[in-house]
Amino acid sequence: MSSAALSAGPSANRQWRLAARPKGLPVATDWAFRTEPVPEPGEGQFLVRVMYISLDPAMRGWMNDARSYVPPVGIGEVMRAGGVGRVVASRHPDFAVGNHVSGVFGVQDYALSDGRGVVRVSAETAPLPKYLSMLGMPGMTAYFGLLDIGRPVEGETVVVSAAAGAVGQVVGQIAKIRGCRVVGIAGGEEKCRFIVDDLGFDAAVDYKNEDVRAALRERCPDRVNVYFDNVGGEILDTVLTRLARHARIVICGSISQYNNEGPARGPANYMALLVDRARMEGFLVFDYAKRYPEAAKEMAGWMAEGRLKSVEDMVTGMEQFPATLLRLYSGANFGKLILSVAGDAG
Amino acid sequence: MSSAALSAGPSANRQWRLAARPKGLPVATDWAFRTEPVPEPGEGQFLVRVMYISLDPAMRGWMNDARSYVPPVGIGEVMRAGGVGRVVASRHPDFAVGNHVSGVFGVQDYALSDGRGVVRVSAETAPLPKYLSMLGMPGMTAYFGLLDIGRPVEGETVVVSAAAGAVGQVVGQIAKIRGCRVVGIAGGEEKCRFIVDDLGFDAAVDYKNEDVRAALRERCPDRVNVYFDNVGGEILDTVLTRLARHARIVICGSISQYNNEGPARGPANYMALLVDRARMEGFLVFDYAKRYPEAAKEMAGWMAEGRLKSVEDMVTGMEQFPATLLRLYSGANFGKLILSVAGDAG
Repeated sequence: MSSAALSAGPSANRQWRLAARPKGLPVATDWAFRTEPVPEPGEGQFLVRVMYISLDPAMRGWMNDARSYVPPVGIGEVMRAGGVGRVVASRHPDFAVGNHVSGVFGVQDYALSDGRGVVRVSAETAPLPKYLSMLGMPGMTAYFGLLDIGRPVEGETVVVSAAAGAVGQVVGQIAKIRGCRVVGIAGGEEKCRFIVDDLGFDAAVDYKNEDVRAALRERCPDRVNVYFDNVGGEILDTVLTRLARHARIVICGSISQYNNEGPARGPANYMALLVDRARMEGFLVFDYAKRYPEAAKEMAGWMAEGRLKSVEDMVTGMEQFPATLLRLYSGANFGKLILSVAGDAG
Repeated sequence: MSSAALSAGPSANRQWRLAARPKGLPVATDWAFRTEPVPEPGEGQFLVRVMYISLDPAMRGWMNDARSYVPPVGIGEVMRAGGVGRVVASRHPDFAVGNHVSGVFGVQDYALSDGRGVVRVSAETAPLPKYLSMLGMPGMTAYFGLLDIGRPVEGETVVVSAAAGAVGQVVGQIAKIRGCRVVGIAGGEEKCRFIVDDLGFDAAVDYKNEDVRAALRERCPDRVNVYFDNVGGEILDTVLTRLARHARIVICGSISQYNNEGPARGPANYMALLVDRARMEGFLVFDYAKRYPEAAKEMAGWMAEGRLKSVEDMVTGMEQFPATLLRLYSGANFGKLILSVAGDAG
């Protein structure tokens, strides 16, 4: 692609489309960069200038041609992504020019919408990127996954993996608010220091530099009552050896396995579920859509009290999309990973 | 060992002791056959002439030196086993000579007991082997595992593996009584015919002669709401691809993996728990001990109405123990596997 295309101004719609189904980690040839004319809204539609694009581990799954909770992204289609933007043209009664909105707008500068699945957000209530983090899907995922599936009880030990990630950081803080002992598993000293010093976790396990099993034995002396799993693979298997009786394992993701070319690695120690009378359960945040306002209200309260915070890892530039996405799978991101694409145009 | 030892009369106590920890399937050198004098009960003890010995898949796990829900059997100790027998000498106020009793008496002719974990059973209410089958641990395991963990609802589809086994046959019948569509997975035509024709299952899948995935697709058109898993391994992985939303997987056993020399095979498709918002949960029947009478009463009622039956697979002769145990792991047994050891002496 030419750098002219990448730097196309606001009168062009830069897009990243899926060109091929990746094997393992997505590579350059799996993507096609396109510059299209900016579309015009028809009757009942509005046009969004996308400002912030959410980069999520789940995106890798959407690229596979496999049964899942949403259809795969088609070859040639704009890559699916959540985002926040500003309405710049409207023929829709409920969305006016200047409104800020959150929705699934794709990896592109401009998106047409009929309003389905789009919510208005307020830049005065919170900085817009927060609507892709704490006040968006990651926050809702943490809230409902922990409280509805994990059901932690005061005094219990809660362990969360990818603890400095978009979901993990919120899970740990809510568990602290609920009176639990919280141990986060994260990669590298900086993340581990962050979750303990800045977020108030009781302890961290640095899976890149420590023996996870030994560290869990030491830092979870009463074993693990709730494990919120974002990573799968070896860490899941290790936590399974440290469960308390009647433990709950919340299956939120398995990022360590998303780029496997062969079958995923199943948890070899799953018979711990029997020995420890434990439960492993999956969930999808979309099922809780009706209860988002309830969660948002409670979390906003905690934020106002200074008990809940989030960090975002912001990368600037539409051209950075393919490389930035890979940061999720190497664990390079620190907090919620967001691509800022509008420059001063937002 | 000499055949004289094996045919020792009722004045000797024949025993199978654990000689070494097996790697994979137990072999002859993992066992030691001993003939000891028949012990005498001390004050507060009684002596049981063991008549029927329960052979259970879980026995393989007890032979490993690993953390589990019970301590491992020590090298040199009599192999742990449930059994039914008759009190032949007593210095215990609650157990009289002639009483029939059920308990963990080990793989031997005679066992001393102080009464802990021992219950009296009635040969008039049911044939004694039933107390190791429908009216014993397998029946309780089926009852609580299905109803408390699986929680089937009328009209749902319930799938059970090892369906002609001690637990599976009861699971399927209770699910039928609860108004479910029931599909059993079993090995071989005879077992499949049995669970459909004799036990009333709606359909069977012959894992030895059919493509399990295709068969499940055909016989569970509304997918699987409850899967009661006794086997683990490839069958568990296949059922995971056919879950209905909010499915429940009851982890009761993983007999396909008990003799692995390497690590067990974990369910590679476990992320179906997320896609289908499903739950996988283990349990141990011993936790329900206080509720056994409730279950026994309900099951006895169903038996009296002819809605619930069980078959036992009886093998005669103490000397047959090592070879008979292996029948469980090859799938050769048909119904609850029991070793009859007392001849006419019971």
